[in-house]
Amino acid sequence: MKIVVHIDEAEQWQAALSEALPQATVLTSEAPAEERQHADYLAIWKAPAHLLKEQTQLKGIINLGAGVDYLLKTPGLPSDVPIVKLRDAGMGELMADYTLYGVLHFYRSMDRYVDQQQSATWQPHEVVEKHQWPVGVLGLGAIGAFVASALQQAGFPVLGWSRSPKQISGVRCFHGDEGLTELLGQVQSLVTILPDTAATHHIVNAEKLSQLPKGASVINPGRGSLIDEKALLEALGSGEQPGHIRGALLDVFHEEPLPKNNPLWQHPRVIVTPHMAAPTPLYDAIDQVISYVHAFESGDKLSTVNPDAGY
Amino acid sequence: MKIVVHIDEAEQWQAALSEALPQATVLTSEAPAEERQHADYLAIWKAPAHLLKEQTQLKGIINLGAGVDYLLKTPGLPSDVPIVKLRDAGMGELMADYTLYGVLHFYRSMDRYVDQQQSATWQPHEVVEKHQWPVGVLGLGAIGAFVASALQQAGFPVLGWSRSPKQISGVRCFHGDEGLTELLGQVQSLVTILPDTAATHHIVNAEKLSQLPKGASVINPGRGSLIDEKALLEALGSGEQPGHIRGALLDVFHEEPLPKNNPLWQHPRVIVTPHMAAPTPLYDAIDQVISYVHAFESGDKLSTVNPDAGY
Repeated sequence: MKIVVHIDEAEQWQAALSEALPQATVLTSEAPAEERQHADYLAIWKAPAHLLKEQTQLKGIINLGAGVDYLLKTPGLPSDVPIVKLRDAGMGELMADYTLYGVLHFYRSMDRYVDQQQSATWQPHEVVEKHQWPVGVLGLGAIGAFVASALQQAGFPVLGWSRSPKQISGVRCFHGDEGLTELLGQVQSLVTILPDTAATHHIVNAEKLSQLPKGASVINPGRGSLIDEKALLEALGSGEQPGHIRGALLDVFHEEPLPKNNPLWQHPRVIVTPHMAAPTPLYDAIDQVISYVHAFESGDKLSTVNPDAGY
Repeated sequence: MKIVVHIDEAEQWQAALSEALPQATVLTSEAPAEERQHADYLAIWKAPAHLLKEQTQLKGIINLGAGVDYLLKTPGLPSDVPIVKLRDAGMGELMADYTLYGVLHFYRSMDRYVDQQQSATWQPHEVVEKHQWPVGVLGLGAIGAFVASALQQAGFPVLGWSRSPKQISGVRCFHGDEGLTELLGQVQSLVTILPDTAATHHIVNAEKLSQLPKGASVINPGRGSLIDEKALLEALGSGEQPGHIRGALLDVFHEEPLPKNNPLWQHPRVIVTPHMAAPTPLYDAIDQVISYVHAFESGDKLSTVNPDAGY
């Protein structure tokens, strides 16, 4: 069995997979082309097109992350090879911590205290009860559902949204266009954890932002394409003239790294983080890859990516 | 039965207590002196000395907060009247959220990202596993124990310390002087939730700060007197020359409001919040006061404050 790995720090993956799968030849994409060919499996993240095109006998592709948008757009992706993805390799907890930090930041007025500190202003703000701070989570895949549950366990009412109906214990689930409007009207913080697809592109646009209550905050640990950045900047207003939206914690952007001249960097009510909400913890992820390979080899039924749906 | 209330927004307390205790006359400290006298109970927070001195037949004093340092220093406090205090009127959760926010702030490098944002620098930092981020909690009273458990449930190893031995499920408990030194050597974030007593005054001083690992952070939602502010400032270093301590989130200070010229306001690695970590949620607190009054009236044994111990 031959596995080719393409990802940052691929050597670490190579070493761990070789040890766990002694019957396999595990190569990185740095190996010579003639050695890489005839692989049984690709375990890849943002791989170049040639790595896909050169393969002739693939049994499966393992996407080393939860987002498959890059992979699905890669030229040369074979249409007849099943794709699996890391569903929540410890990423749920990382994403939930990032999101909870953001919700607490606005809920506990930390944005106001940081602002007040510049002028040495001592002014406490009221803490409302958590039941008065509903949080909306757009996207209820493995990670979105995990984050929704974590916020609910932290005491916040959680409203979740997905295109098709879902059920999550303790979370009020909405779906479809009408459900989205209904959710937006009720949440103090909005969290976006949808996949990057044609249907989710700019799903948070000027119209949707205007449907949030005045003073709502936006937290995006998901995908840069989900939010119309221009519309968000307009809704945030300026430093002197606050707009409809109170603030934002953003981890992902249309262009990454976020260009130096993008006004989000300088906005006083935006926190920019450099796509760090949920790096894949290596060892959890490797365990998943190993179990995927075992499942492929033994012909187990796997939950595969649907390229038409985009996730 | 007569109850006199002294606290900010005393009218709200007066209304709620009157409704719950229809047999009682509930006054605020704004009532004329002749009406306030001969009270059975005082329900007070930072009351003036005359309010205590004028009383002749008190059966009990209910301290409307967890900290009794102010009350115990008030001239005119009768030595023969039992004192009870609000033990955790929803304050545990508020304090735990504040603390968790602070731990996540440093654990997830949010301090670094906020700093990097000033120069539009896109630079992710590694997230270590939570088991590599032990958190120390000094003070294991009702609120400290609640906070310690909440941090442990959030996935962090928690080391707790109190003067006398305690046991809390999932928390490694230390006590005494040697226990404190042992704890300090191991924690990445230090949380101080001790009462303000002679024994805890400046318990976190230059020596103790130096016993923390380099790069540790300090979170103080407890009492301003616990930390030697001058020593903390020295340990933090300057903006250009970082010191032994990475940063601090501080809610309480030697002098409150924190004076405009206190350098903590301007320090780039300190977040100052205006004593807002745990405001007493009114309705929870009122329920506790009511049950204290009932217990006093029916002669139930109550856990009272020990003025000699200071808590």
